[in-house]
Amino acid sequence: MDGAKLATVNPLLKEIRHNPLLWLLAFVPVVFAAEHLRPAAHTLLFVLSVLAIVPLAALLSHATESVAAKTGDAVGGLLNATLGNLTELVIALAALRAGEYMLVKASIAGAIVTNSLFMLGACFLLGGLKHHVQEYNRVSARLQAGLLFLATIALLVPSTIADADPTGSAFTHKLSVGLAVMLVATYGLGLMFTLKTHREFFGSAEHAEAGEEPWPIRLALASLAGVTVLVALVSEVFVASVQEAAKTFGMTPAFVGFIVVALVGAAAEMASAFSGARKNRLDLSVGIALGSAAQIALFVAPVLVLLSYVIGPAPMDLQFWPGAVAMMLIATLTAALVTTSGRSAWFVGVLVLMVYLIFAMTLYLLPPRAQ
Amino acid sequence: MDGAKLATVNPLLKEIRHNPLLWLLAFVPVVFAAEHLRPAAHTLLFVLSVLAIVPLAALLSHATESVAAKTGDAVGGLLNATLGNLTELVIALAALRAGEYMLVKASIAGAIVTNSLFMLGACFLLGGLKHHVQEYNRVSARLQAGLLFLATIALLVPSTIADADPTGSAFTHKLSVGLAVMLVATYGLGLMFTLKTHREFFGSAEHAEAGEEPWPIRLALASLAGVTVLVALVSEVFVASVQEAAKTFGMTPAFVGFIVVALVGAAAEMASAFSGARKNRLDLSVGIALGSAAQIALFVAPVLVLLSYVIGPAPMDLQFWPGAVAMMLIATLTAALVTTSGRSAWFVGVLVLMVYLIFAMTLYLLPPRAQ
Amino acid sequence: MDGAKLATVNPLLKEIRHNPLLWLLAFVPVVFAAEHLRPAAHTLLFVLSVLAIVPLAALLSHATESVAAKTGDAVGGLLNATLGNLTELVIALAALRAGEYMLVKASIAGAIVTNSLFMLGACFLLGGLKHHVQEYNRVSARLQAGLLFLATIALLVPSTIADADPTGSAFTHKLSVGLAVMLVATYGLGLMFTLKTHREFFGSAEHAEAGEEPWPIRLALASLAGVTVLVALVSEVFVASVQEAAKTFGMTPAFVGFIVVALVGAAAEMASAFSGARKNRLDLSVGIALGSAAQIALFVAPVLVLLSYVIGPAPMDLQFWPGAVAMMLIATLTAALVTTSGRSAWFVGVLVLMVYLIFAMTLYLLPPRAQ
Repeated sequence: MDGAKLATVNPLLKEIRHNPLLWLLAFVPVVFAAEHLRPAAHTLLFVLSVLAIVPLAALLSHATESVAAKTGDAVGGLLNATLGNLTELVIALAALRAGEYMLVKASIAGAIVTNSLFMLGACFLLGGLKHHVQEYNRVSARLQAGLLFLATIALLVPSTIADADPTGSAFTHKLSVGLAVMLVATYGLGLMFTLKTHREFFGSAEHAEAGEEPWPIRLALASLAGVTVLVALVSEVFVASVQEAAKTFGMTPAFVGFIVVALVGAAAEMASAFSGARKNRLDLSVGIALGSAAQIALFVAPVLVLLSYVIGPAPMDLQFWPGAVAMMLIATLTAALVTTSGRSAWFVGVLVLMVYLIFAMTLYLLPPRAQ
Repeated sequence: MDGAKLATVNPLLKEIRHNPLLWLLAFVPVVFAAEHLRPAAHTLLFVLSVLAIVPLAALLSHATESVAAKTGDAVGGLLNATLGNLTELVIALAALRAGEYMLVKASIAGAIVTNSLFMLGACFLLGGLKHHVQEYNRVSARLQAGLLFLATIALLVPSTIADADPTGSAFTHKLSVGLAVMLVATYGLGLMFTLKTHREFFGSAEHAEAGEEPWPIRLALASLAGVTVLVALVSEVFVASVQEAAKTFGMTPAFVGFIVVALVGAAAEMASAFSGARKNRLDLSVGIALGSAAQIALFVAPVLVLLSYVIGPAPMDLQFWPGAVAMMLIATLTAALVTTSGRSAWFVGVLVLMVYLIFAMTLYLLPPRAQ
Repeated sequence: MDGAKLATVNPLLKEIRHNPLLWLLAFVPVVFAAEHLRPAAHTLLFVLSVLAIVPLAALLSHATESVAAKTGDAVGGLLNATLGNLTELVIALAALRAGEYMLVKASIAGAIVTNSLFMLGACFLLGGLKHHVQEYNRVSARLQAGLLFLATIALLVPSTIADADPTGSAFTHKLSVGLAVMLVATYGLGLMFTLKTHREFFGSAEHAEAGEEPWPIRLALASLAGVTVLVALVSEVFVASVQEAAKTFGMTPAFVGFIVVALVGAAAEMASAFSGARKNRLDLSVGIALGSAAQIALFVAPVLVLLSYVIGPAPMDLQFWPGAVAMMLIATLTAALVTTSGRSAWFVGVLVLMVYLIFAMTLYLLPPRAQ
């Protein structure tokens, strides 16, 4: 490594030296070694992969904030949501190739619920414990909630109609493709709206950040890319081991797909969102939480439906388990109602987290045959 | 025609000369001639009647705006919604006399959904493409959304309870009459509220309108009445031909009743609403869209239930197909959420139109036996 | 009775002399006498107990306002809701001991719906008939609506999932206990939020009250306690007689449990809430209506579930009749939508009361076998 490169990477090494959490990075090579040597030790691989994802998520958080510091919170939040959801997309693509459509759908529904309830609620709670009352850009939150609402309706229709018409498989597939195209088009128009025609509404006030030095933009971008790839690789080990490990811990498949996979898959974004909330940059946090949920609903899910015609063993539709649709609908409605005021305090976070807890408790206790 | 009359009608003739769209008025006599000469040529009659309704709707738009210019947007919007819905009422009365309750109900549900999603969304989009951000009187929008919400709950109850109790026909009829009386009473109280006790909240700021001269009030009122009658007559030809023509075009009955009849039936109001949106008079547009939906739900539908005891072959109830209830509920909720801020931009229109597109796509693809 | 005591009680006697409504207090001993002498005369006991509850409620109203005058509206509202719901709790505990879980659940659901629709709507209407436009603290209303929303979701889940899994009785019981603990914990955190960490948001502006002298605090507190006990005793007579009396009047069991018991049970709070609305102290009224509904949902209902393991013949769960869940959900959503603006006029009250009327009419007409 020559001098110029070293100078570029220097802030990264400094960061690792000063942040004990990042010492967990040592688990990244350990995971790959363990997977190679003991591919059947599912519980071990599960624990190791979680330990490796945590520091990677923290690194990603700092890299994203460095970019966000130069581009404004709105673009930074978008960047974060895009790269954070790469994890979910990579996991889902692997499952899609294997034809495990139930797991794909559970992880999509779980990611939407986890982002719009757990991540949002935890941001409000963590931020509220430090700051008495926090303000954020509610125009941006309203837009994301509107996108989520639209996507939930799009997912609601095939699931509801299919109940009335259980034999209409061809109908469900045609409808799913139509909805997928429509969702992606809306997502694209939404980006045009927030980043081009009306971007002045979606930037947020500048917040001075003392004590933490942003990385140079090249290091930040390189770290974003590299660390995201590592997260994706470790996540694959995690997914391969999680089902077997869950049985050891006595969890139901619904709980694993909906809660555990979604929580670990969103770990990277959560680190950024929580750190933003603690620093009173709630615009960034709300942007990550709702933007990520909207991106999964309007971009990841429809892309998977369309890709299933190319790479899957059979086409995938957008028909979900009614309980999952109900949870997505309630999560979306909760996020919309909670963010209308543009203000938050710790108890708002408690309320949102409690809705998540109701779902998690129900799925944990649910007897496997009822899912 | 003597000189005084000519002077009165002069602005109307001038308008027709300068607006190429109004040359389509020539199709009005053609429709009646074709119906007389070739009553079985359904596809021809369908196309001709649509071509005749468009210019009539445009005339109605100008007449209504002329009245609105003298009475204020709130009263003008109310007038527009009242006369625009005469079309729907006339169509539904014809179907009621024939005992076609399914068609009556589909056109009621379709009109509510079309007005509160398609018309509202298109107003936001068309207005937003011309004006960066538009403001409107949200107190008025909130009231209309509240009325719609109430009506949807009233329609939800008999449909839901009837599922639980399919034999309770006597119960459903008694409940429907009770709900109809209640809805009409609420509508009357609502008019008293907006036009009398609290009218200062429902007027809107004056907008200067250069370049377009309002008609004298007598011509405007006479045109409103006469053109509405013509719209009603042409609409009857349209309804008689639409089912057969739809088969030729490969549409399902649900799609025809819910989407096509509702779109053409509301054409007159749409011309006014869209023109208002382009002229940045969004108060007028939102008033027409939501006011019209509310009027159909709280006035037209209950009046039809009560009249069915007098003129129908059997009493009609308020029990709808569950899918129609779900769509009305989602449409109402969408309109309520979207209008809370009192501001709009083009993408808000895209979101609302997408919800409509989801419904239209589903009904278009739905296999006929599942309806 | 010595002089000091007489001086303390003097304002109470003066109040009774000047308020003809309070002369109905004479019915309190009459109820107890009639119950002793003619325990089988259900219709008589029903009428007498209603006549006795009305003046007790009025007294309670004045006592609560006296305390509220010294402690601020927020604490006063909380006090009122707490003591008012003692009635509901006492009634439900009697039914719980007798194992009448259907009645317990109907009275819980009915109390939530009655408080959040009938009481809130009547406050808006009564206040609005006297005052053109009324303002109130919407931060407080939003919090209560949020708590109610959470509780409704918690009640929705076991009812929905149980449909999918009718044999999962053990699952439903475990889930109900988990949800009960969670709801009580949230209620406690909510009190901490409103009374401690963020109490500055929940007080309301001082309103001068001419013409009515608040009682001394000791008399007010003693009256609150004593009158509450009397209300509880009379309510028990009422509950014992209401089912038989209802048959005489031709009401269905669902109507009795959901509407009549809830209306009479909440009479005390209603007197306070209505009086606050007339005096333009809508903060007090909305606080009583929504606070009371939230307290029943987050405190009374879960406490009953937990107590059923100690004093009931069998454990009670949180699984409600689907129609009851739908009504609670609509009531909560209506209250949330209506209170977002923090302003009200008479027609808002009409809208909310109409939603209540739809439910009451449906339950009144519902054939008994369908419940």
